[in-house]
Amino acid sequence: MKPLRVALIGLGNVGMGVLNLLQENKAVLSSRAGREIEVVAVSARSKRDRGMDLSAYQWLDTPLEAATHPDLDVVIELMGGDGDPAYSLVKTALQNGKPVITANKALLAHHGLELARIAEASKTPLLFEAAVAGGIPIIKMLREGLAANRIQRLYGILNGTCNYILSVMEETGRGFDDVLAEAQKLGYAEAEPSLDVDGGDTAHKLLLLASLAYGVQPDLNALSVDGIRHIRAEDIQAADELGYRIKLLGQAELQEDGSLLQGVAPCLVPKKSSLANVSGVLNAVYTEGNYVGSNFVAGRGAGSQPTASAVVADLIDLARGAAVNPFSVPVSDLVPVKRMDPQDWTGEFYLRLVVLDQPGVIADIAAILRDCSISIESLIQRGRDPDQPVTVIITTHEIKRRNMEQASAKMAALKTVAAKPLILPLLKF
Amino acid sequence: MKPLRVALIGLGNVGMGVLNLLQENKAVLSSRAGREIEVVAVSARSKRDRGMDLSAYQWLDTPLEAATHPDLDVVIELMGGDGDPAYSLVKTALQNGKPVITANKALLAHHGLELARIAEASKTPLLFEAAVAGGIPIIKMLREGLAANRIQRLYGILNGTCNYILSVMEETGRGFDDVLAEAQKLGYAEAEPSLDVDGGDTAHKLLLLASLAYGVQPDLNALSVDGIRHIRAEDIQAADELGYRIKLLGQAELQEDGSLLQGVAPCLVPKKSSLANVSGVLNAVYTEGNYVGSNFVAGRGAGSQPTASAVVADLIDLARGAAVNPFSVPVSDLVPVKRMDPQDWTGEFYLRLVVLDQPGVIADIAAILRDCSISIESLIQRGRDPDQPVTVIITTHEIKRRNMEQASAKMAALKTVAAKPLILPLLKF
Repeated sequence: MKPLRVALIGLGNVGMGVLNLLQENKAVLSSRAGREIEVVAVSARSKRDRGMDLSAYQWLDTPLEAATHPDLDVVIELMGGDGDPAYSLVKTALQNGKPVITANKALLAHHGLELARIAEASKTPLLFEAAVAGGIPIIKMLREGLAANRIQRLYGILNGTCNYILSVMEETGRGFDDVLAEAQKLGYAEAEPSLDVDGGDTAHKLLLLASLAYGVQPDLNALSVDGIRHIRAEDIQAADELGYRIKLLGQAELQEDGSLLQGVAPCLVPKKSSLANVSGVLNAVYTEGNYVGSNFVAGRGAGSQPTASAVVADLIDLARGAAVNPFSVPVSDLVPVKRMDPQDWTGEFYLRLVVLDQPGVIADIAAILRDCSISIESLIQRGRDPDQPVTVIITTHEIKRRNMEQASAKMAALKTVAAKPLILPLLKF
Repeated sequence: MKPLRVALIGLGNVGMGVLNLLQENKAVLSSRAGREIEVVAVSARSKRDRGMDLSAYQWLDTPLEAATHPDLDVVIELMGGDGDPAYSLVKTALQNGKPVITANKALLAHHGLELARIAEASKTPLLFEAAVAGGIPIIKMLREGLAANRIQRLYGILNGTCNYILSVMEETGRGFDDVLAEAQKLGYAEAEPSLDVDGGDTAHKLLLLASLAYGVQPDLNALSVDGIRHIRAEDIQAADELGYRIKLLGQAELQEDGSLLQGVAPCLVPKKSSLANVSGVLNAVYTEGNYVGSNFVAGRGAGSQPTASAVVADLIDLARGAAVNPFSVPVSDLVPVKRMDPQDWTGEFYLRLVVLDQPGVIADIAAILRDCSISIESLIQRGRDPDQPVTVIITTHEIKRRNMEQASAKMAALKTVAAKPLILPLLKF
């Protein structure tokens, strides 16, 4: 059988990882794929030395050349970014019937629907295992392995940077800014960290998973996004004492009325739960399906080698002739998200208040909770320092988020409350 | 597109689960599969009432009719057993170019190579996601999701009955016989439990996983099998105190010389490890690949609904036109296992001795360990009861299994040693 001829566009960590993998595992790959996988052409912004001899590959001066190149069977897009040149490359390749493999979650979160439509129209595969959770084959699990199920809940730890920061905060008791600065030095966080720590990257990935799990159109306007900047060392310590850990989760829950709660937020998860035990830069996804029950998968969610593993898994699928719709069902079957108002979500909550240590302050807070129909599960005041700010941690019984927000707003208006109260969902599973 | 016409052979728990699933999730299944999935014919040993109206399906008096039935696109074999009628049904169907989906690990462990050869010769899919770990899509993960990797280690908790028994023994401190009897009453263990508790079922499943992971021929003669009958409550308690849990693991480790350590045995795993936290009837698989790193997946490993989820996932794959070799690579590429002598395995060990509480016994044991070059990590004598049997628990530093067996044989010959010493590997990961 003829080799599968590949163009590799983008020669950063992941791109070089793909080249290394294709060389190192060459024998087993051609046996599994049923044919040779041969990189024919490469392209990148610069021709800087990458520590590998690239002279055997045709150098394309512009990425777009790959989209119409007659000697290529597939384009691997590893440039990243939700605009050009990635967008035009992927679009043009698909329009020309050239299969595309990409790790670009931002591109797919913004333009996935349009690109999938083009892919289907031209009967051309568009594969993106590497776009979510690195080496964990979660796209394939949702698209194929668990495809017999209606999925009911999906929680993911999808951003290694955030999970690393939260893990180190827990291990060391240090604050967010301090740990972020260290993570940046170690290369675990970007110099401009907002896409990670403010939840945007998790949102991109969650949208793709939710689309596969629930048959909804990926829509960045249909989810709420919160990050981890406002998590303090004392929150992590309080969670620990309550038997929980704080994790930044992408969360997609199908409601009984068919609406979808979809969002990104730090949550308290029980220490005994599988998600709580995912530490450092690992990623993990927990799902519940109506036949399979709960399923949990964890592994390395980023980095050159795990991401290359996912890219090459897609290459093997292509070489074997697999052809599945990008989002599992035809684009015409994907429905707009029927969005659940997050204010209607009912569950237990964690509430952190910073109050001035004055007589009557707890009575005021308790009265507000009572007026908002919120029942207290536990209340801990930390420290004792007259007229100085002290922290009060409250956990609640089940209540609507709306009531929590109302209570929070009333508390924030109290003169004795020194900072915006923090509300975190407390998940049980 | 035409419906995919299915024969369902075997109407036990799993078969009925498949029928229920196909009805309950009908809409989403046809959207994902790209066509209707239609059960046309069924067959089972008896026509007893199964609480569902089966009159819409053609009843086949013998399973073998399905293999050549002109109105069928696929045969689902759910009868079980490594011989006929399952064997002839699967073989004949494949010979006639009729795709087969089966949950039958015993059949595949015994005849997988022959059946895969027939499937390839007739270019006919043979799919068996349901044969290993129920609802966990581990076959697909190894065959596709992690296919870019050379796998280095694979550990699986693959038998829910054993894991349930070990979990209850740990929770309650009760003995094996007692917990087994209860599990039988609750339906978690068979009346004839040997296939489960003696490790045979785990061995069947491990062989299939090892074949996919390492490209070796499944060969029941190429692995050692040990079960959990000889695990005592005191072993579980001692493991607990040492920071470990005892799990029955299927284990396949590639050695540096290319040989494969392949076996089933109870092992001590660190409490913090992902496998240690898989409790009750759950299954899980831990793998390490040379690019992806570690990967862990857990879920429900048996039962009507999870197994049906796996069967129907294979149906969807078929309906979508997926065509992968049964064991990932062509049968001609599968190599015989280059078996590592288990005696050459080097690691830490747990050793349980029952000795008469007499002066000098520990000195004798310590001398034997010294003579076999075994270095003691810890030694605990439980209880104090002159001239009565007491338990001594020893953990070792790294040493070859051969040395442990030699020491064990020498100890067994001591008059003060009252029972055959128990040796369990102590795994670190």
